[in-house]
Amino acid sequence: MPSQAELSAFLAREFPQTRCTVEAVGAMGATVRHEVGAQELRPGGTVSGPVLMAVADVALYVAILGEIGIVPLAVTTSLSINFLRKPASDRAIVGVCKLMKVGRSLAVGEVFLYSEGRDEVVAHVVGTYSIPPTARAPA
Amino acid sequence: MPSQAELSAFLAREFPQTRCTVEAVGAMGATVRHEVGAQELRPGGTVSGPVLMAVADVALYVAILGEIGIVPLAVTTSLSINFLRKPASDRAIVGVCKLMKVGRSLAVGEVFLYSEGRDEVVAHVVGTYSIPPTARAPA
Amino acid sequence: MPSQAELSAFLAREFPQTRCTVEAVGAMGATVRHEVGAQELRPGGTVSGPVLMAVADVALYVAILGEIGIVPLAVTTSLSINFLRKPASDRAIVGVCKLMKVGRSLAVGEVFLYSEGRDEVVAHVVGTYSIPPTARAPA
Amino acid sequence: MPSQAELSAFLAREFPQTRCTVEAVGAMGATVRHEVGAQELRPGGTVSGPVLMAVADVALYVAILGEIGIVPLAVTTSLSINFLRKPASDRAIVGVCKLMKVGRSLAVGEVFLYSEGRDEVVAHVVGTYSIPPTARAPA
Repeated sequence: MPSQAELSAFLAREFPQTRCTVEAVGAMGATVRHEVGAQELRPGGTVSGPVLMAVADVALYVAILGEIGIVPLAVTTSLSINFLRKPASDRAIVGVCKLMKVGRSLAVGEVFLYSEGRDEVVAHVVGTYSIPPTARAPA
Repeated sequence: MPSQAELSAFLAREFPQTRCTVEAVGAMGATVRHEVGAQELRPGGTVSGPVLMAVADVALYVAILGEIGIVPLAVTTSLSINFLRKPASDRAIVGVCKLMKVGRSLAVGEVFLYSEGRDEVVAHVVGTYSIPPTARAPA
Repeated sequence: MPSQAELSAFLAREFPQTRCTVEAVGAMGATVRHEVGAQELRPGGTVSGPVLMAVADVALYVAILGEIGIVPLAVTTSLSINFLRKPASDRAIVGVCKLMKVGRSLAVGEVFLYSEGRDEVVAHVVGTYSIPPTARAPA
Repeated sequence: MPSQAELSAFLAREFPQTRCTVEAVGAMGATVRHEVGAQELRPGGTVSGPVLMAVADVALYVAILGEIGIVPLAVTTSLSINFLRKPASDRAIVGVCKLMKVGRSLAVGEVFLYSEGRDEVVAHVVGTYSIPPTARAPA
């Protein structure tokens, strides 16, 4: 299975727009991190919702690739987010993904999003990914 | 209630990062549009999921402000997206929002996302916004 | 494709617990109806949430079978409901489903739930169904 | 705050239809249990989706009342379920709720549903409850 370094390299090459970095991957999970600067903030000094959704999407993607290998064709089929608390404007966002199922055709996981260094969840995401038929080794 | 021009000006001022434009607003709905260029694409030539989510979020926000007036403190509390078909890589994304409820404290709506000029829905969103207590006139 | 009578008979045979009846089916949609009595009410005289979810689930199922034929193995993979208004305690619940996509392996639709004879939506559901590989004719 | 016995008595009195029992409550969580018999099964010997949703709804409700006290007016505003694995037909369903936020007006939590005695999650739920203004002590 791909290492953190391999997944980081893949992400940088295939998704040059993302500012996420891979902090950890493996054991049905992943942790990613996204710097917060002026570009990520909206009025009132809060991190914009789409930034949080993008971080969660990457966390899910990395966690799944950590299980099935690097399969660029895995695609998000649904993503559901609840915004719980205002993130800090001066801290990176950290996304911690735990997969609940990696099946033959569908993977499902949740992501807890935090302002780095704080304990309270700022948003919670559940997402599903579709896995292409050829990508998955027999269970 | 605010006009399309007023909402466009508000959006440009308060959310300078967004590339969405307001095409129409009123009657418990709104239509917004987002150009698609290299920045919005991911490998395989498809519009990235976070871009679709961001367009839906703006469509909901504009539709709600169209009902309650310009209230910068309205915030997304949840957003749920289903990705249905691959968007075209060379067409703008259009988001059509229909609100289902604008209550005293919560507004709920759905957004259909299209590749401009095509009939098939590329993604469907349901979102809820929290409305600050002072913003809402008595029902 | 199965008629309303065929789907009603299938539902009565395979799901004897359900009190839903099929009012209409076809054209990527379905309408179902569920009587409301003491068994469906919770304190305060409102229809219980699980009853509304069950009606939506049947509406989706019937609409999908209306498109792909009677396939008992189609199963719900996700269901998401927003409760919008208190349903009347003395009116049946009507669920109107519109499918957004019936693909080879996944079908997605939404259901608007009403108190019979009223215009306001009491709850809105988005659901996805998994379609078994052998059930689906080539697209 | 109410004990398990008080919550069980409340549930039996106010929701006579439910067959759920309260196994544990407190510390921002709750565990509930629902017997499975012929009434809960659908063709193929699987527990019906609406039963799983109902168990999750009760788990959330009990966990929230465990935090804010017995407030019959708290109502579900949204519930989102992903069905992950087929539940056993001969085991009770156990729902384990963890609350993520209990705010002044909204509570959000997740529920993991299991077939009793097994480790694999059969379904995962995220739900939100609206808390009436008078129910909540100052934070």
